[in-house]
Amino acid sequence: MARSLGEIVEALGGTLHGAPDTPIQRLAPLGTASAGELAFVAQLRYAHQIDTTSASALIVPESLKERALARGSCIVTGDPYLYFAKLTQWWRREHEPLPEAGIDPLASVHPSAQLDEGVSVGAFAVVARDVHVARGTHVGAHTVLGPGARVGADTWLHPRVTVGARCQVGARCVVHSGAVIGADGFGFAPHEGAWVKIEQLGAVRIGDDVEIGANTCIDRGALDDTVIEQGVKLDNLIQIGHNVRVGAHTAIAGCVGVAGSADIGAHCTVGGGAVVLGHLRLVDGVHVSAASVVTRSLLQPGHYTGMFPIDDNATWEKNAASLKQLNRLRERVKAAEHAIEQALQNNPKS
Amino acid sequence: MARSLGEIVEALGGTLHGAPDTPIQRLAPLGTASAGELAFVAQLRYAHQIDTTSASALIVPESLKERALARGSCIVTGDPYLYFAKLTQWWRREHEPLPEAGIDPLASVHPSAQLDEGVSVGAFAVVARDVHVARGTHVGAHTVLGPGARVGADTWLHPRVTVGARCQVGARCVVHSGAVIGADGFGFAPHEGAWVKIEQLGAVRIGDDVEIGANTCIDRGALDDTVIEQGVKLDNLIQIGHNVRVGAHTAIAGCVGVAGSADIGAHCTVGGGAVVLGHLRLVDGVHVSAASVVTRSLLQPGHYTGMFPIDDNATWEKNAASLKQLNRLRERVKAAEHAIEQALQNNPKS
Amino acid sequence: MARSLGEIVEALGGTLHGAPDTPIQRLAPLGTASAGELAFVAQLRYAHQIDTTSASALIVPESLKERALARGSCIVTGDPYLYFAKLTQWWRREHEPLPEAGIDPLASVHPSAQLDEGVSVGAFAVVARDVHVARGTHVGAHTVLGPGARVGADTWLHPRVTVGARCQVGARCVVHSGAVIGADGFGFAPHEGAWVKIEQLGAVRIGDDVEIGANTCIDRGALDDTVIEQGVKLDNLIQIGHNVRVGAHTAIAGCVGVAGSADIGAHCTVGGGAVVLGHLRLVDGVHVSAASVVTRSLLQPGHYTGMFPIDDNATWEKNAASLKQLNRLRERVKAAEHAIEQALQNNPKS
Repeated sequence: MARSLGEIVEALGGTLHGAPDTPIQRLAPLGTASAGELAFVAQLRYAHQIDTTSASALIVPESLKERALARGSCIVTGDPYLYFAKLTQWWRREHEPLPEAGIDPLASVHPSAQLDEGVSVGAFAVVARDVHVARGTHVGAHTVLGPGARVGADTWLHPRVTVGARCQVGARCVVHSGAVIGADGFGFAPHEGAWVKIEQLGAVRIGDDVEIGANTCIDRGALDDTVIEQGVKLDNLIQIGHNVRVGAHTAIAGCVGVAGSADIGAHCTVGGGAVVLGHLRLVDGVHVSAASVVTRSLLQPGHYTGMFPIDDNATWEKNAASLKQLNRLRERVKAAEHAIEQALQNNPKS
Repeated sequence: MARSLGEIVEALGGTLHGAPDTPIQRLAPLGTASAGELAFVAQLRYAHQIDTTSASALIVPESLKERALARGSCIVTGDPYLYFAKLTQWWRREHEPLPEAGIDPLASVHPSAQLDEGVSVGAFAVVARDVHVARGTHVGAHTVLGPGARVGADTWLHPRVTVGARCQVGARCVVHSGAVIGADGFGFAPHEGAWVKIEQLGAVRIGDDVEIGANTCIDRGALDDTVIEQGVKLDNLIQIGHNVRVGAHTAIAGCVGVAGSADIGAHCTVGGGAVVLGHLRLVDGVHVSAASVVTRSLLQPGHYTGMFPIDDNATWEKNAASLKQLNRLRERVKAAEHAIEQALQNNPKS
Repeated sequence: MARSLGEIVEALGGTLHGAPDTPIQRLAPLGTASAGELAFVAQLRYAHQIDTTSASALIVPESLKERALARGSCIVTGDPYLYFAKLTQWWRREHEPLPEAGIDPLASVHPSAQLDEGVSVGAFAVVARDVHVARGTHVGAHTVLGPGARVGADTWLHPRVTVGARCQVGARCVVHSGAVIGADGFGFAPHEGAWVKIEQLGAVRIGDDVEIGANTCIDRGALDDTVIEQGVKLDNLIQIGHNVRVGAHTAIAGCVGVAGSADIGAHCTVGGGAVVLGHLRLVDGVHVSAASVVTRSLLQPGHYTGMFPIDDNATWEKNAASLKQLNRLRERVKAAEHAIEQALQNNPKS
């Protein structure tokens, strides 16, 4: 399954220094790469590893070209990390051929569904009435597309994805196993001590080039739709409540919860395990640290954090106990300041 | 698919002011409703939107009747939010007919299973031996009912739900895709540095009128059952440990974790991302804020919170650093107070 | 379905005091056990319950033998909790026979897959090309094994598990419903305001005797593999990022997120809802409390915590407000200390 350096440069560009027929068996991390492997160096702080790696070749920026050449072959490119990303895509296409177009005989496809050219449907998939799947899209085994769902071109739905009734997924998306798009938003009216369900009549609209992680849930809107704009990347086990908007090219890490009607701007990042409360607005360019709880709108771009610093348990216990009296402590400090001020006024010479 | 105001009032009550044949194409939020749409106003603080909305009609309380009439048609009712909830239910029934009763030919139903009148079973569903499904219930595509499971009447199991062996789901429940009812509780005995599995011999019992969100997990009990009482509403991606009890009409938001043997009372609410540790008791009427960690039993009704306030990252860093020395700061304040007291005793006139 | 005390002791050892033909209908918790039930007492602090329980027999340590005998039958053993764990395993085997070996006619098994002796495959399972399943393993209904996946002997894959292409699961593992092993790690290169996907070319390797909870996700590595070592126990709804290592016999509770390339040692425990940031190292024997955020490597064994103490909401509000000025408070204390010191220097006699 080896590819040669020459094939790689032919496909992806860059300037090759070294023998084009050098075989590459595998892409590898710089720190552990050995003979037959290709690694990249994107940051100067890893430059010292260049001298000692046994990799058959390196992908480096112009600034590291001399150092790389001193040890062997290299591909010089403007942005090695971007080059590496594109290389992984090319590598995968070379090694994992796409499934053949066609419907697995064990799938259940409603006669009214429209599957365009080049669509593949896996075993036990369910494609309901009035569904439209655009060309080149793969519907994984066990994936369920509800009535009226629409999926754009060249999208990859992994096995066991659910796309609910009337929900839309864009082109060139990737949706991982267990994702649930279009479950009901969490809406109930209180009545005499019980909860009366508000049926969720909206849907979910997902733009192009979106990736959705395993077991992530995106709820359908109550009346209007929940919207995930183009280029958004969602990690695993994320909860997106009803009527949320996630702006273009925003990335959200795993285990994040976004409550209903939150409006997250474009080009934001949200760290793992963070929580965004409902009906808040985060403008474009907001970055929320892991495990932080957004309790108010963030109307200025910037980096926001709120998490209790971890410590050894004994120290934490003492600080946490003090924290529960912090407001009282503040009052004590105020009283002490007042006493000092009084004393100084009475003893001006001291 | 339009319905008229007259049809709506005939089905749901309320006093109609306006032409009964006014067509309603869609239910819409007050803020964006336009011609052909019906919106509701439940709270006085939104009353100013009444004057500017283009909605064809409004659902309002008696107190807003005059203001609503000044602009056009309205339905007057005692509790507009409750009216709206019931309207969404009626609207959905009108527009999304229930699936026809019967077993999809691609489902796998054990001959010993008992399916009552009006039950529908979707494609690729698995109904194991000795299962009982009561009348009018829908078993979605890909849903798996384990041996001896029981599901009450008029319940809706969305596609891809798992109900484990011997677990019970009540009547009029809704269970969303990916929910796992009856996986093993997390129980192991430590032995010579390894963990020995404690098989979980209990089951899960879920009352009537319960809703369970997408990818939510409710573990089976170790010996006794895990119990979710009637009217409980669970959002998505919630973890309920073994032998937990969740009391009637309690609502839990997304991403909450409830550890084993916790006992949560009735009419409680738990905010998104909160954690309830094991073996604790929360009495009826406890409300836990989002992302708070319940580390002790809460034996008085009330509202409880524990989360680090979010701030810009630079400010947070300074405060978090100080927090790690908070107990020391408290001792310094105590010493300062002591020094002041001593000084005042020595200089009583000052 | 009753078993006798004699059968139990014959299977599991221990010293029986009492009639071997005493029937046991059920294993039960000490606090609620009644006639026909068998309970265990592992800790002295529960010893007082011995006198009042109606259990037909008790499993006790030598130290509680006399007290137990004073009320009736007992099994004496060195480690009652371990005995109980093994008893639950035996009890389950006696009452829930294993599925018969063989492939359900409704499963989809690729001709190139190798299924060893005694393997059972449930309805609608998908076993792709080049898969190997070792003897005695159960592949649940709806479970999907991707191309080249390998599963060890005597493993139990519950219904609806996904094992991605080239991923490996060890022997004697248990994987619960909805678990996703081998979804893509979350890796993107930023480029002109958008994200370029880094295809994840590694896989997941899971050792022997591992348990993986419902809806838990373990992502495949970017280049190298994500590794879960032998004896690890993962609860439900856990996210394990790409290239993480979890060391042998570590136990992680529900809703935990472990970010990419974190390296967690052996014999660690991580409490529910905790977050471990990426690229950190936790040495063997680290214990992280629930809901704590690990933001730095923990290079000494021990117990670590970081969570905001819960309080009634009004008190929390005051303390949280003070916390946002904590660093300022610290400066005020410093200033007060300085003023006191100055005053004392000027008034040495006071």
